[in-house]
Amino acid sequence: MKLYNYFRSSASFRVRIALNLKGLAYEQVSVHLTRGGGEQLAESFRALNADQLVPVLEDDGHLLTQSLAIIEYLEETHPQPPLLPRDPVERAYVRSLALTIACEIHPLNNLRVLRYLVRDLGVSDEKKDGWYRHWVERGLAAIEARLLAECRQGLYLLGDDVTLADVLLVPQIFNAQRYTCRVDHVPVLMGIFDRCMQLPAFIDAQPSKQPDSE
Amino acid sequence: MKLYNYFRSSASFRVRIALNLKGLAYEQVSVHLTRGGGEQLAESFRALNADQLVPVLEDDGHLLTQSLAIIEYLEETHPQPPLLPRDPVERAYVRSLALTIACEIHPLNNLRVLRYLVRDLGVSDEKKDGWYRHWVERGLAAIEARLLAECRQGLYLLGDDVTLADVLLVPQIFNAQRYTCRVDHVPVLMGIFDRCMQLPAFIDAQPSKQPDSE
Repeated sequence: MKLYNYFRSSASFRVRIALNLKGLAYEQVSVHLTRGGGEQLAESFRALNADQLVPVLEDDGHLLTQSLAIIEYLEETHPQPPLLPRDPVERAYVRSLALTIACEIHPLNNLRVLRYLVRDLGVSDEKKDGWYRHWVERGLAAIEARLLAECRQGLYLLGDDVTLADVLLVPQIFNAQRYTCRVDHVPVLMGIFDRCMQLPAFIDAQPSKQPDSE
Repeated sequence: MKLYNYFRSSASFRVRIALNLKGLAYEQVSVHLTRGGGEQLAESFRALNADQLVPVLEDDGHLLTQSLAIIEYLEETHPQPPLLPRDPVERAYVRSLALTIACEIHPLNNLRVLRYLVRDLGVSDEKKDGWYRHWVERGLAAIEARLLAECRQGLYLLGDDVTLADVLLVPQIFNAQRYTCRVDHVPVLMGIFDRCMQLPAFIDAQPSKQPDSE
């Protein structure tokens, strides 16, 4: 398998964690998101993904896009160890936590979105950073509130096995820390984050350990 | 089953289509997103969903959130007719199209995001509408480009069977039309949209047919 990705992209980070958890070997191809105006915008990359986003996973000649779709594919083609529980209600719970990060937090802080705020809407850097922190802090608080209401967490977000939800959580916390967002209001999430970051699959997938890390 | 939803919410619209396609009966509870400051922000609703978003599906006492997680749950608990193909590569393709809408277009045009632009960033209504149209037109163009590159569409986004991707497409086109976004640059998508809107499951799920429609 070949993963077109960027060390700092959190959607790429998600897929690296999932590949590591599944014990799958993969080759990395770096797509630098800021160098030369952004390699993801080049025609050669557009041929791999018309939406000009990393990651793209190439498996057996097939090009797969969208990190959550890629991880569901890995789950279906390499079921062990599972990243989703067996019970449909629990699967829905795990997916809903993952989607809260993927749909309610991350898209608002995407590079092209931040650029649009500054270039097209004339938003100051300070207010742009405020926007970033607002959606991260608010989104994490909503997840923390959900955990406290549901009481289904254990060592990880659902019980004592790592799931898709943890795979999404960790890169989002990395982003939060990079942009100095508050995280002291989400102690349960931070405890889970710390436990994940003791696992080799997460440690090895982090941005600073990637070959294209600066 | 009981669906807490709002007629105009496109995430709600997705779940209504899926329920209809599966032939499942459900009771609707309206959560009005703008009346009284937003019923989704009330404490009583927060107890159902800490993230204060519709839809919420109640099934057998379980509260399910996030439209894509709900639809995957329906697919697992009521497999017929399927909304995902059987082949993992095709499943990944369908999910990636759905996620392009759910992650790259829709979150940027969510009510609370538009409010933040105006109230917190001081963006004018005109520029806010420009923002809305930018992400819709760009996102739809990326999907159209992908279809043209992959040539896997038929009557619908993948072949001749309705899938999860079509379930996501139709509400997004409704939003595009409501905000007078360009759609003449995506003729393949519009052809698929028109075919979907000849099916009772889509017709019956549309905003204007809901009990809480104004």
